[in-house]
Amino acid sequence: MTSSVLSRLRGYSLPLSPSGTSAMLTPPPWHFSGEVVMVDYRVDPVAAAAFLPPELDLGADPGRAAAVFAHWQWCSEPGTELADPGTSQFGEFLILLACEYRGRPLARCPYAWVDQPVPLLRGWVQGMPKQFGELHQTRPMRVGRAGPLGSAAGTYHGTASTGGRRFVQASVNVTAPAAEPPALHTVPLVHTRVQPSWVDGEEPPVELVTSTVTGVEFSEVWSGDAHLEMFDVLDADFASLRPVSVGRGHVFGYAETLVSGRPLT
Amino acid sequence: MTSSVLSRLRGYSLPLSPSGTSAMLTPPPWHFSGEVVMVDYRVDPVAAAAFLPPELDLGADPGRAAAVFAHWQWCSEPGTELADPGTSQFGEFLILLACEYRGRPLARCPYAWVDQPVPLLRGWVQGMPKQFGELHQTRPMRVGRAGPLGSAAGTYHGTASTGGRRFVQASVNVTAPAAEPPALHTVPLVHTRVQPSWVDGEEPPVELVTSTVTGVEFSEVWSGDAHLEMFDVLDADFASLRPVSVGRGHVFGYAETLVSGRPLT
Amino acid sequence: MTSSVLSRLRGYSLPLSPSGTSAMLTPPPWHFSGEVVMVDYRVDPVAAAAFLPPELDLGADPGRAAAVFAHWQWCSEPGTELADPGTSQFGEFLILLACEYRGRPLARCPYAWVDQPVPLLRGWVQGMPKQFGELHQTRPMRVGRAGPLGSAAGTYHGTASTGGRRFVQASVNVTAPAAEPPALHTVPLVHTRVQPSWVDGEEPPVELVTSTVTGVEFSEVWSGDAHLEMFDVLDADFASLRPVSVGRGHVFGYAETLVSGRPLT
Amino acid sequence: MTSSVLSRLRGYSLPLSPSGTSAMLTPPPWHFSGEVVMVDYRVDPVAAAAFLPPELDLGADPGRAAAVFAHWQWCSEPGTELADPGTSQFGEFLILLACEYRGRPLARCPYAWVDQPVPLLRGWVQGMPKQFGELHQTRPMRVGRAGPLGSAAGTYHGTASTGGRRFVQASVNVTAPAAEPPALHTVPLVHTRVQPSWVDGEEPPVELVTSTVTGVEFSEVWSGDAHLEMFDVLDADFASLRPVSVGRGHVFGYAETLVSGRPLT
Repeated sequence: MTSSVLSRLRGYSLPLSPSGTSAMLTPPPWHFSGEVVMVDYRVDPVAAAAFLPPELDLGADPGRAAAVFAHWQWCSEPGTELADPGTSQFGEFLILLACEYRGRPLARCPYAWVDQPVPLLRGWVQGMPKQFGELHQTRPMRVGRAGPLGSAAGTYHGTASTGGRRFVQASVNVTAPAAEPPALHTVPLVHTRVQPSWVDGEEPPVELVTSTVTGVEFSEVWSGDAHLEMFDVLDADFASLRPVSVGRGHVFGYAETLVSGRPLT
Repeated sequence: MTSSVLSRLRGYSLPLSPSGTSAMLTPPPWHFSGEVVMVDYRVDPVAAAAFLPPELDLGADPGRAAAVFAHWQWCSEPGTELADPGTSQFGEFLILLACEYRGRPLARCPYAWVDQPVPLLRGWVQGMPKQFGELHQTRPMRVGRAGPLGSAAGTYHGTASTGGRRFVQASVNVTAPAAEPPALHTVPLVHTRVQPSWVDGEEPPVELVTSTVTGVEFSEVWSGDAHLEMFDVLDADFASLRPVSVGRGHVFGYAETLVSGRPLT
Repeated sequence: MTSSVLSRLRGYSLPLSPSGTSAMLTPPPWHFSGEVVMVDYRVDPVAAAAFLPPELDLGADPGRAAAVFAHWQWCSEPGTELADPGTSQFGEFLILLACEYRGRPLARCPYAWVDQPVPLLRGWVQGMPKQFGELHQTRPMRVGRAGPLGSAAGTYHGTASTGGRRFVQASVNVTAPAAEPPALHTVPLVHTRVQPSWVDGEEPPVELVTSTVTGVEFSEVWSGDAHLEMFDVLDADFASLRPVSVGRGHVFGYAETLVSGRPLT
Repeated sequence: MTSSVLSRLRGYSLPLSPSGTSAMLTPPPWHFSGEVVMVDYRVDPVAAAAFLPPELDLGADPGRAAAVFAHWQWCSEPGTELADPGTSQFGEFLILLACEYRGRPLARCPYAWVDQPVPLLRGWVQGMPKQFGELHQTRPMRVGRAGPLGSAAGTYHGTASTGGRRFVQASVNVTAPAAEPPALHTVPLVHTRVQPSWVDGEEPPVELVTSTVTGVEFSEVWSGDAHLEMFDVLDADFASLRPVSVGRGHVFGYAETLVSGRPLT
C-alpha cells in the first residue's frame, strides 16, 4: 500500500487511516486452528465440471467431493486477536470438488459460508467465495452425556443456514481412528481471484491462485459412517452439487498458516 | 399439566398444543456438558449481603465470589436435541456469591446471561435470573498456534456484552493442574423462584429453591493467575459487585444433570 | 413483590437486586406502537378446535384465522426505553384463531415468535406462548423505488424463521383503504397462563386470562389480495394450522397500552 | 466478466457459477430508499486532514463533519430482493468529513458500519470502508405513544456497536421542518478504491472514485437540537474524529440509485 495516493493513509485493507490501525483486515500470515467435521460424497461429474475454469479438469476420479464443517480460532502474527474470542472465532461450511491442473491434484471450492465478517472479506481477497450463514457443529466434550467425548466413538452433527433457510445438514458417526487424513483436505485449494467491476469500462483482472501454506497439522482423525442432506432452498447451480452418494465421515483437529497467494502455474 | 382446564392442550411449557410437541421447553431431566473458564474474586461483603434474601447469610468468608464463563451442550433424556447443534449449544456468564443457609455452604447467583432462548426460559422456571447477552470464550485446540492446547499451560479469555455494551472481560493463564475443583463450583445454587405479577390483586408465590443434581463430573482442572474487569455500563446494583481483588482462575470440563427443584430446608 | 422473603431484594422480575433496578422486565403498563402486515386465512376447524381449552369454542365462523407480522416500538410508563432503540424495538409473528367464550368473540394465539428477549419473557408472564425467531417485514418508505410508499398501493412481505428454518412467508398487495380494521385484530386475546412445574409434587396453577388494554389506535388500513405459505419444518401440531384458503391482507399502524391481566369471566 | 478464464463460470461477483445466479452481489444499478437520522458536528481539522488522500483538501470550512444513521431498503433493477425483507433491509452508520477536490465540494467517509453482508461487500467494491456492526435507530410511528410520529416534532435516537462494544450514540430532537436538506448529504462521496494485496509482489491499483447517482429524492426534512457521543472503545484514529462541538440534527427520508463508479477528475 505504498502508492503515492496513499501517502497519508495506511492500512492492509479498508478502512484506511492515518496510522493504519483501523484496517478491518490484518496482513498475512494468518494462523488457524480448528475442529473439522467432514463428509466425503460424490456429485454428478457433469455438474462438477461446470464449476471448473477451463484450466482445470476433474482428474482421475470425476465427481469426488466433500462437505466440510469447521469451527476455527485464528490470529495474526502477534496473536493479539486471541484476547477477544468473539473476534478470533468463526464457523465455516464449504464444499470441495476434486480437480487437477496438468495432472496435479487440487481442490476447488465452489461455495463457502462463514459467520463472521473478517473471514468473509479475507476470503474474497484470496478469491474464496465466502458468503454469510449460520453455522453450527457438535463439539466434543470432556465429561458427561451431552455430546460425544473427544478421541472416542460418537456422533457429530453439522447444520448450515443462510437468510433463515437451512441448506445443509450432516452427521458423522465416528467409530475408530483412521490411518490418514481425508484426501480432499490434504490438497491445495485453487481459487479464481476476481474483483467485481464498478468503474465504467474497466476490465477487472481475473487469475487462478493457490496459497502458500505452512504449519499444517492434523490431530488424530476419527472416521465412520456419514449422512448428508442438501436442501433445495438456494439456486439451481448450488442444487446441481447435491449428493449422488454419500461416503465416509471424518472428525479431526486441523491447523495451518496462510502466508500468501501464488498464481497457478 | 393435568388440570382439567388443559384437557385438550398439552406440553411441559408454552406453547401448549394438542399433542404437546410444540412446547418450547422439554421436561427435566436435562443433561449438560460444558467447558468452563472461572475466576475467583472478592466483592465488598456489604454489597454481597444486599443480594441475599433474609434466610441466607454470607457465612465464614464474606465477599467470596466467582465470575464464570461456560459453553454448554445440553439434551433432554432422549438426547434428540444433540442432532441440532444450534439448539443444543449455548454460552453462559454468571456471577456466584458464597453464602450459607443455617451453616450449610451454598452459592447465590445474582446475575446470569445466556445467548439462547431455551436456557433463558429454563432459568426462569428455576428462579435463576438469566438475561440475554453475547458471550464468547476461548476454546482449547488440539493442534496449531491459534489458541491454547487442551490439558496444557495457556491463556483463556472470556467476554460478555448485552445490548451492544461489554460489561465484563476476563482472562486466565493456566499453568498447572489443580488438586481439586474450585470450591464455589461444587456447592448447590439457591435461587428465589418468583413469577412477576400480572393479574390484578394476585400475590405471586415466592420460594427459595435448590436443585436435585446428579451425574456431576469434573475433568482435570488447570489453574493459574487471572484477570477480571467489570465495566460500568449496567446499573449500580450490578456495579456494586465489581471486584475488590482478583484471585486464581480455573479451566475445566464439567457435567451435570438437572433433575428437579427442592424448597430450601 | 412484598413477601417477607424479599425484604432485601426488589424488582418486578428476575434478576432481583437491592434497589430493583436490575429487573429484566419493567412493571406494566407497557405502551406499544407498531406497523402490522396481516393476512386473513382459514384453517381446518377441527385442527383449530384442538388448540382451544374446553372453556372456549370456535363460535359462529369456525376456522377463521390470521397470520400477523408486526414491528413494534414499546416503552414503559416513563418512556426511558425509547432512548435505546435496540431495546425498544422488536419484530413479532403470530397466528390468531377466532373463538368465543359464552358467545363473546375472542382471539386465541396458539403460536407467536419475537426476536428480542424482553417481549419473549413478558409474553410468558401473560400466558402468551412467545418463542424466538428471525422476523422480517417490508417497511413503507417515503421516497424512492425500493419498497412501497406509505398510504399508497404497494406490496408488503413478511418472513419468519426459527433455528435457521423458514416456517412462514406472506405477501400483501394493498390497493385501497379499507372501511374498518380487520376483525380478528379488534377482539381481546385469551391466553392460558401457566408456569412449568419444577419443584417435586407441585401443581402449577393454570388460568385463562385476558388483558386490560387502553389507548387502542388504528391508522388508516390498506387492504388487498394476499399470499401465505407455511412450511412443514416445525411439528405436526403447527402444521395442522396451515392455510386451507387465504383471504385478504391488511397493512396498518396500531397502538395499545397493556395494563394488566384479568381472569376470563 | 468476459475473460476467457471464465468461459464456463459466470457472475457479477463471487461465487462464480455455471449460470451466474449464485453470485452474492447483483450488478448495479442498485436502488435505495431509506430513513436517515443525521447529526452535524465538528472535528479537529488536523485530525480530519489526516484522513484525506493528498488530492483532497478540507476546503472552505475545515472540520465540518456529520454522523449519519440510516435504515435502508434496496433492490436491484428487477426488484426481486424486495420479496425477502431480511435480504433487502440493512442498517448503516457512517461518518462524513467535508472536503474539496480542486474547489469542488465533496464528502469523505472515513468509517462506515452496516449490519448485513451484501452491503458490506458492495461497499468494498466501491472503496467505501464498511465494517460490521449492530445498528439501531428510532422509527417514526403512525399512532400511539411509543416513539415519535412522522412529520411531527419528536426525538430520534441512534446507537452503533461493534464486537459487543457501543462506540456511538446520538439523539435528535426535531422541532420544525427545515428549508433544505443538510449540506453534507447533498455532495458526492469520494472513496479510495483499493484491493488488499495477496499474491507475492503484486502492487494493487489504488484510485479515487466517485459515483454516478440518479434518482435522488429527499422527503421533507425535520431538524432540531442534537446530541452526539463517540466512545473510546475503538482505535486512536477513530477517536481522533470525536466531536469538538455538536450542531443541528436532521431526520428525513432519502432515495438514490447507484449506477457506477467514476475516477475522480
